[in-house]
Amino acid sequence: MPVVTFLSDYGLSDDFVGVCHGVIARIAPQARLIDITHGIPRQDVRTGAVVLRRALEFMPAGVHVAVVDPGVGGERRAVALRCEGGEILVGPDNGLLAPAAERLGGVTDALDIGRSPLRLEPVSRTFHGRDIFAPVAARLATGSPWSEAGDTVDPGMLVTLDLPRPRVAQGAVVAHVLTVDGYGNVALDAVPADLDGSGLTPADPLSVNGRSARYARAFDDVDEGELVLYEDAFGALCVAVNRGSALATLGLHMDDEVVLAPMP
Amino acid sequence: MPVVTFLSDYGLSDDFVGVCHGVIARIAPQARLIDITHGIPRQDVRTGAVVLRRALEFMPAGVHVAVVDPGVGGERRAVALRCEGGEILVGPDNGLLAPAAERLGGVTDALDIGRSPLRLEPVSRTFHGRDIFAPVAARLATGSPWSEAGDTVDPGMLVTLDLPRPRVAQGAVVAHVLTVDGYGNVALDAVPADLDGSGLTPADPLSVNGRSARYARAFDDVDEGELVLYEDAFGALCVAVNRGSALATLGLHMDDEVVLAPMP
Amino acid sequence: MPVVTFLSDYGLSDDFVGVCHGVIARIAPQARLIDITHGIPRQDVRTGAVVLRRALEFMPAGVHVAVVDPGVGGERRAVALRCEGGEILVGPDNGLLAPAAERLGGVTDALDIGRSPLRLEPVSRTFHGRDIFAPVAARLATGSPWSEAGDTVDPGMLVTLDLPRPRVAQGAVVAHVLTVDGYGNVALDAVPADLDGSGLTPADPLSVNGRSARYARAFDDVDEGELVLYEDAFGALCVAVNRGSALATLGLHMDDEVVLAPMP
Repeated sequence: MPVVTFLSDYGLSDDFVGVCHGVIARIAPQARLIDITHGIPRQDVRTGAVVLRRALEFMPAGVHVAVVDPGVGGERRAVALRCEGGEILVGPDNGLLAPAAERLGGVTDALDIGRSPLRLEPVSRTFHGRDIFAPVAARLATGSPWSEAGDTVDPGMLVTLDLPRPRVAQGAVVAHVLTVDGYGNVALDAVPADLDGSGLTPADPLSVNGRSARYARAFDDVDEGELVLYEDAFGALCVAVNRGSALATLGLHMDDEVVLAPMP
Repeated sequence: MPVVTFLSDYGLSDDFVGVCHGVIARIAPQARLIDITHGIPRQDVRTGAVVLRRALEFMPAGVHVAVVDPGVGGERRAVALRCEGGEILVGPDNGLLAPAAERLGGVTDALDIGRSPLRLEPVSRTFHGRDIFAPVAARLATGSPWSEAGDTVDPGMLVTLDLPRPRVAQGAVVAHVLTVDGYGNVALDAVPADLDGSGLTPADPLSVNGRSARYARAFDDVDEGELVLYEDAFGALCVAVNRGSALATLGLHMDDEVVLAPMP
Repeated sequence: MPVVTFLSDYGLSDDFVGVCHGVIARIAPQARLIDITHGIPRQDVRTGAVVLRRALEFMPAGVHVAVVDPGVGGERRAVALRCEGGEILVGPDNGLLAPAAERLGGVTDALDIGRSPLRLEPVSRTFHGRDIFAPVAARLATGSPWSEAGDTVDPGMLVTLDLPRPRVAQGAVVAHVLTVDGYGNVALDAVPADLDGSGLTPADPLSVNGRSARYARAFDDVDEGELVLYEDAFGALCVAVNRGSALATLGLHMDDEVVLAPMP
């Protein structure tokens, strides 16, 4: 059974997602369509890229459509990327697909699908999810030849995405807010191994931006309202407040520095 | 594979949509169920009707359930409408289905399904989506005879829906807010052809309710924060603010007049 | 076709639900997956339990996953429960599944699946929906033997859930807020039969927490803005305001007393 997965910032209050489902179902009535999420913050390519990368590890093999596309209708390319192992990514060439493609082993073949013969006609200027990405993905999922889907692009010419990286400074780890979930849990760009090079040890009390916190394995290991640093379900270091919001407690925004230091 | 599409104002925070899915899956385990959206503003029959009309162009052939039903449990009829070409619409007879039926070529056969033998028993007074619309749609999608689904109604007796219409006045186009999407983009009742009869030309600067705007093909053709008039992805004239909300910028509400005029 | 239903408090703004869908689709590509709702208020086990109980009456036979799990990663058990008639419930053992299991005739077999060989490895401490509940449910739905899914637990040792119960006092019915839907309609712990023992008769005017109300069969039987007591679509007594919010009008919160009395 062909599989199409779908991630976007369309939200569910409008009919955008439903219309893309209709387009896919017309072309690929037997395909299984999995919505990864449509709750990516509007036009937030970075969060979309990080969520796509981590979610694809749990998806069946198939064609993966992602649309967070502030430049729709402008000069940015629409692309299909075939990765090592055969997974296919479809979306705008604005960095959204780059971290996922890298995790999937890198791009072996890339196509510019902006003028694909598999797209819907006429193409609107503002809804390429419906007119380009969904139909091309559905065609590829149901066996349309790759070579007919668009014009070859040098994978080295694709737009990349700079993600923040943590650093160790004076015995502390200076990490950054990478993504935030709906509970107010803050995922950092650091992973547990990043702590190794610092003076931090899991057993010792630590501070997060100056506030007392504990390193623990789960929310329930700390008291209600307490700050906790833990490895989240996707392998990232994450800051949370047991039954509360770390985002609100720490007053953080995307990309803000989060300093993990030993308690003085 | 039978197809059932589903649009409502139920939202997704409750189990209403899920329960309707369960009812349909019990009756039609092989049917493909496509959610157009459940984010129609509560009891806003007009927006539901406009969204249904435009979304159905992209749906596979099938049975289309729509429920925006402020009169549930009252005197309004529950109906199934068979249109030219065979598409079937199921929902309350309050105007919600009328624009879609018209776009589908008009209603050839109408049934009152309020006492349909295909409904669930007992019928609640407040959840006809579950008890009448979903089960009757699922039965029709899986081949139950039309004639057994309800009592024949004269299509001429169905409730209609008055939509606003734009007019040309003193060289300007006086349009109205028809629908609003989650980005704050405002779709008007006018289409590009309506500009032809006015003094407006796409090349000239124009004003929208007195504010400077530009006619463009896409968001990216104007600067961030600028007002733009464009043809939206469904063929309607639409007012947007690049990376902002036209709704908030212009202080608009449903049905408000939107005057498109040449800049003095 | 195997059926898996899924209820949670994950919301749809993150990828949690989508990732669980991916896990289930990998294991059970042919399974039909029905989302009951993911809008249960965060960590509100009580509402989750009541909604699950009422929604399952309308679901196809299958495996039913429910995750409202404030204790994830702590000491609470992860369980699979086989009920009279064969329905299977999967989720945390925190009372969430108990009312549904009771309605399904009671638990005949229970398993602790926290260390199930059918779970994903490695198991995170914070996302058991993905790592334990979804994969074990998908395996059971596709025919994995019950005995291999976990360690037998005495059904009598399962966590139960105390739900409020209405009482009759001085000719009035003292009920409680059991659940609230997105319209602000308040479902009580009372059913119409509870009125029989009181002095209340449907024909007479009544008061709800001192405010004038009417007993009616549907919203439309009262004027806009009027308080109405009615039997909701799931058989519970419910307080609503026609085209308004009873929750806001009465200033209620979960478990608050709602006194139904004759008008003086």
